[in-house]
Amino acid sequence: MKIGFVGLGHMGAPMARNLLKAGHSLVVYDVVQRNVDALKAAGAGAANSAARAADDAELVVTMLPSSPHVKTVYLGNDGVLAGVAPGVTLIDSSTIDPHTAREVAVLAAEHGNPMADAPVSGGTGGAEAGTLTFMVGGDAGVFEKIAPVLRHMGKNIVHCGESGTGQVAKICNNLLLGITMIGVSEAMNLGTALGIDAKVLAGIINTSSGRCWSSDTYNPYPGVMENVPAARGYTGGFGADLMLKDLGLAVDAAKLSKQPAMLGALAQQLYQLFSAQGAGGQDFSAIINLYRHQS
Amino acid sequence: MKIGFVGLGHMGAPMARNLLKAGHSLVVYDVVQRNVDALKAAGAGAANSAARAADDAELVVTMLPSSPHVKTVYLGNDGVLAGVAPGVTLIDSSTIDPHTAREVAVLAAEHGNPMADAPVSGGTGGAEAGTLTFMVGGDAGVFEKIAPVLRHMGKNIVHCGESGTGQVAKICNNLLLGITMIGVSEAMNLGTALGIDAKVLAGIINTSSGRCWSSDTYNPYPGVMENVPAARGYTGGFGADLMLKDLGLAVDAAKLSKQPAMLGALAQQLYQLFSAQGAGGQDFSAIINLYRHQS
Amino acid sequence: MKIGFVGLGHMGAPMARNLLKAGHSLVVYDVVQRNVDALKAAGAGAANSAARAADDAELVVTMLPSSPHVKTVYLGNDGVLAGVAPGVTLIDSSTIDPHTAREVAVLAAEHGNPMADAPVSGGTGGAEAGTLTFMVGGDAGVFEKIAPVLRHMGKNIVHCGESGTGQVAKICNNLLLGITMIGVSEAMNLGTALGIDAKVLAGIINTSSGRCWSSDTYNPYPGVMENVPAARGYTGGFGADLMLKDLGLAVDAAKLSKQPAMLGALAQQLYQLFSAQGAGGQDFSAIINLYRHQS
Amino acid sequence: MKIGFVGLGHMGAPMARNLLKAGHSLVVYDVVQRNVDALKAAGAGAANSAARAADDAELVVTMLPSSPHVKTVYLGNDGVLAGVAPGVTLIDSSTIDPHTAREVAVLAAEHGNPMADAPVSGGTGGAEAGTLTFMVGGDAGVFEKIAPVLRHMGKNIVHCGESGTGQVAKICNNLLLGITMIGVSEAMNLGTALGIDAKVLAGIINTSSGRCWSSDTYNPYPGVMENVPAARGYTGGFGADLMLKDLGLAVDAAKLSKQPAMLGALAQQLYQLFSAQGAGGQDFSAIINLYRHQS
Repeated sequence: MKIGFVGLGHMGAPMARNLLKAGHSLVVYDVVQRNVDALKAAGAGAANSAARAADDAELVVTMLPSSPHVKTVYLGNDGVLAGVAPGVTLIDSSTIDPHTAREVAVLAAEHGNPMADAPVSGGTGGAEAGTLTFMVGGDAGVFEKIAPVLRHMGKNIVHCGESGTGQVAKICNNLLLGITMIGVSEAMNLGTALGIDAKVLAGIINTSSGRCWSSDTYNPYPGVMENVPAARGYTGGFGADLMLKDLGLAVDAAKLSKQPAMLGALAQQLYQLFSAQGAGGQDFSAIINLYRHQS
Repeated sequence: MKIGFVGLGHMGAPMARNLLKAGHSLVVYDVVQRNVDALKAAGAGAANSAARAADDAELVVTMLPSSPHVKTVYLGNDGVLAGVAPGVTLIDSSTIDPHTAREVAVLAAEHGNPMADAPVSGGTGGAEAGTLTFMVGGDAGVFEKIAPVLRHMGKNIVHCGESGTGQVAKICNNLLLGITMIGVSEAMNLGTALGIDAKVLAGIINTSSGRCWSSDTYNPYPGVMENVPAARGYTGGFGADLMLKDLGLAVDAAKLSKQPAMLGALAQQLYQLFSAQGAGGQDFSAIINLYRHQS
Repeated sequence: MKIGFVGLGHMGAPMARNLLKAGHSLVVYDVVQRNVDALKAAGAGAANSAARAADDAELVVTMLPSSPHVKTVYLGNDGVLAGVAPGVTLIDSSTIDPHTAREVAVLAAEHGNPMADAPVSGGTGGAEAGTLTFMVGGDAGVFEKIAPVLRHMGKNIVHCGESGTGQVAKICNNLLLGITMIGVSEAMNLGTALGIDAKVLAGIINTSSGRCWSSDTYNPYPGVMENVPAARGYTGGFGADLMLKDLGLAVDAAKLSKQPAMLGALAQQLYQLFSAQGAGGQDFSAIINLYRHQS
Repeated sequence: MKIGFVGLGHMGAPMARNLLKAGHSLVVYDVVQRNVDALKAAGAGAANSAARAADDAELVVTMLPSSPHVKTVYLGNDGVLAGVAPGVTLIDSSTIDPHTAREVAVLAAEHGNPMADAPVSGGTGGAEAGTLTFMVGGDAGVFEKIAPVLRHMGKNIVHCGESGTGQVAKICNNLLLGITMIGVSEAMNLGTALGIDAKVLAGIINTSSGRCWSSDTYNPYPGVMENVPAARGYTGGFGADLMLKDLGLAVDAAKLSKQPAMLGALAQQLYQLFSAQGAGGQDFSAIINLYRHQS
């Protein structure tokens, strides 16, 4: 299949490579020329704009950092809609707010292009291994069509509902993830201060009603688990500033839909505080250090 | 074994019945005579004070609602220590603050009685089925001795460490449980307001990084799961006012040990607000209703 | 002076009337024809677009509900910049986010029009009495020029600094106002629950370090003061949903400038919760009712 | 008048000195002998226990750090009630929880001693200058009797109501003070980040609805005011750890009386966080530094 691919950062580049490996023909574009060159070396064609990457494509995939980028890449003068042929399906795998996702999808539809929002979870590791989860918003026909391609980049392809619901699923999951990570940080920090062994406490929580992914798979307390960021100085993983971004998307969406989100808003502020203290580049589980006494 | 058992409420009564069924000989006491009569009808001996329930016992088990009750029952004029023989082991299964648990255990030790704190999780259902989890604080020798008896009331008997650590494990788990339940409430409420189907959203969360017991085993959103309080109008289960009590224990312990607990304190306040709005008697997952728009 | 005036709602209409009373000549526009007619009856000229209201003006004043309206009214096809002559000064008295205020001012300057942001405090009462406070952002020359006109609508005209700082002053003040109002609500509610007379408590706070406008001028506890919304069932005054909007502007601005705002974010969420419970139309001091036990 | 005075710390010592200056005869006690010696040098008699300080007194005044100290000093074997003659009035100026204040007053009454709680505001400066505010809980007769003596230590003597209400007034005021100080910190920090001059912003707030003591009398932003802790590196004044203690008293009282206190609880946690970061010894207005970006 001839695929136009725009956005070749830490996530987009390995995703594009997996499409190449699966035998697809790619034309790629990124604002950073070095990123384009790297994919070219791997066998992709290079374009000098999103429009050019899209104009000969049978499918377009984008992976971008934020809503304004998505608007520019799709709706700009040199954007996807300026180049793509009517009828070609568009997939945006960026994590952005659902309102923008729906707005761009409506404009794409008016242009004759079915569009799906398909944000991912699984991080750079999942992108490289081709084991991402895709949360797909779009109608059933679009989902049927794109699922086989997404399977070349991920192993879990979920249809969430109509346009925008992929983004909804992503930000709701990450809202809860941010809350549980801070919750685990508070519980582990309190327990050890009160004299229980960290591994014992984690073991009890992980077989009890406090059980959660942040505790049993990604525990933030050093020494509890191996092969997690807490075991390597909070490097790698999912950055605190990325969590801050996702919490911001969730709390903004709550505001727009007039829903209260007390814990979510406080979690966002605590990540903002943590970032302001200079630690935004660490893995998001490092938030537990906000709770450590400083001597 | 001859066991003195004090505290025959919703939890204590079925626990005592399971000890009887296992063949132990019980002498019981409760401030409510009707509760004593019911156990008597089941084959227990009746005492008219905690001291009398303890004075001939080879082991004493107590299950009481709060710290002041524990102090009274152990240290009062008619309390356990006034009746029990030196050398007899004491087990308190109440959920109380770790500082009081340690204080009473020290006084018991001075009196010649090894004591363990052994709070439970599993609720009235687990108490009746004999499937409770016991979180035990006390030295290894005490744990070895009491574990076989606890197994007649529960299926998961965990040694948490020295005296008080059973309480620490319990309140840290429930601190996290309260936070995750509100977190799931916010995520489910937000997602459905943004147009995703509740079952689809729960399915995604439950296979992603937002996964937690409050979502995959006890989801608060009506229609997502069967056999949970949300499926029966938030009756049964673990009451919101009990969660409020446990969050209070955790946040108080954080204060005493000078640890911050931002999300925990806010979760406590939200349960207090919910209770003040008249809903403290509902299951704790009903907190999701705090987020519902009222028309 | 010939003034174009756009936006004739609860605030804009009385402001425009005061300009008429001061002898200015007005051409007005509003999307609601009835609002235009009312001003016409009072002696203003009527236009059928913002551009037409501006095209003969020596000064333009706008009073609009939110950022998108300001963008449309200034930058739209029939907007102020499409009609106004170069060199004419523009005053926007809407309360909006500082980033949008600056963005529009830059575009106006490129068009040859000096622009000031001049949001107000004082409510509809102050608008009618001509006693508003204007917080003005713009360079000193612009401030000198517009201050005499603003004095016909207000009594306190403050120069806050360069473009956007009027909005900054407004949202920072209202951020603090929202926090203090909830703070007073918590303190008054707690004190009376603990047995102190509400008037006595307010009297002590008002002469002590807890003193604030929300306590000494606008106390939310019924019976403490006369002539405040609390004395008349929380009608009139400054609506809870308007406070919610302003807290949203402040917390959004904090996000954009990467500043933490923990109490502000929680205050916003509590007003969102209060609004979701159906009370957003009441005066913002009614938030104290969130704390009342319901029987 | 012959006065027994117990508790000669930073507050108690200057208060006792002012009573001596006013011509009263004092017998003093403190657990720190050096503190006793200093008052002895100033003309007071010295006792070696609270009971001895009280046994010849016509009035007893105590100034102690916390509830457990108050219980010990009044109810202990060598405590005030063990020494004082029936009918002598007792004044406790410590800041403690209202429940303990009432409990001790009831026991004192049973012993034949009328007792008032009379916590103060005004800090060590007010204690030395004799300009403290006393918030007095006790019946009208007791208030009439002790007011003239309190006037030798303070200038504002307020009758708050029955026993305990002095403490209620104090903790409600300080609850609000802690909230407003953090609120001012957020507003000043946000405003300056958005480009407004700190003095200009403070000037606007101080004449607007955000006005409060924390802004107009004790502004935490450096450079806004002279003669406040912010002007001298946050030394002197009212320590952050003392504010943490008072917020703890207020939030605990809210819990006991089943009142929600969302902002209060979060303010407490933020002071706890600030203290855990090593800054609890600074003036409480230094909390603004929690919001500063660290480079």
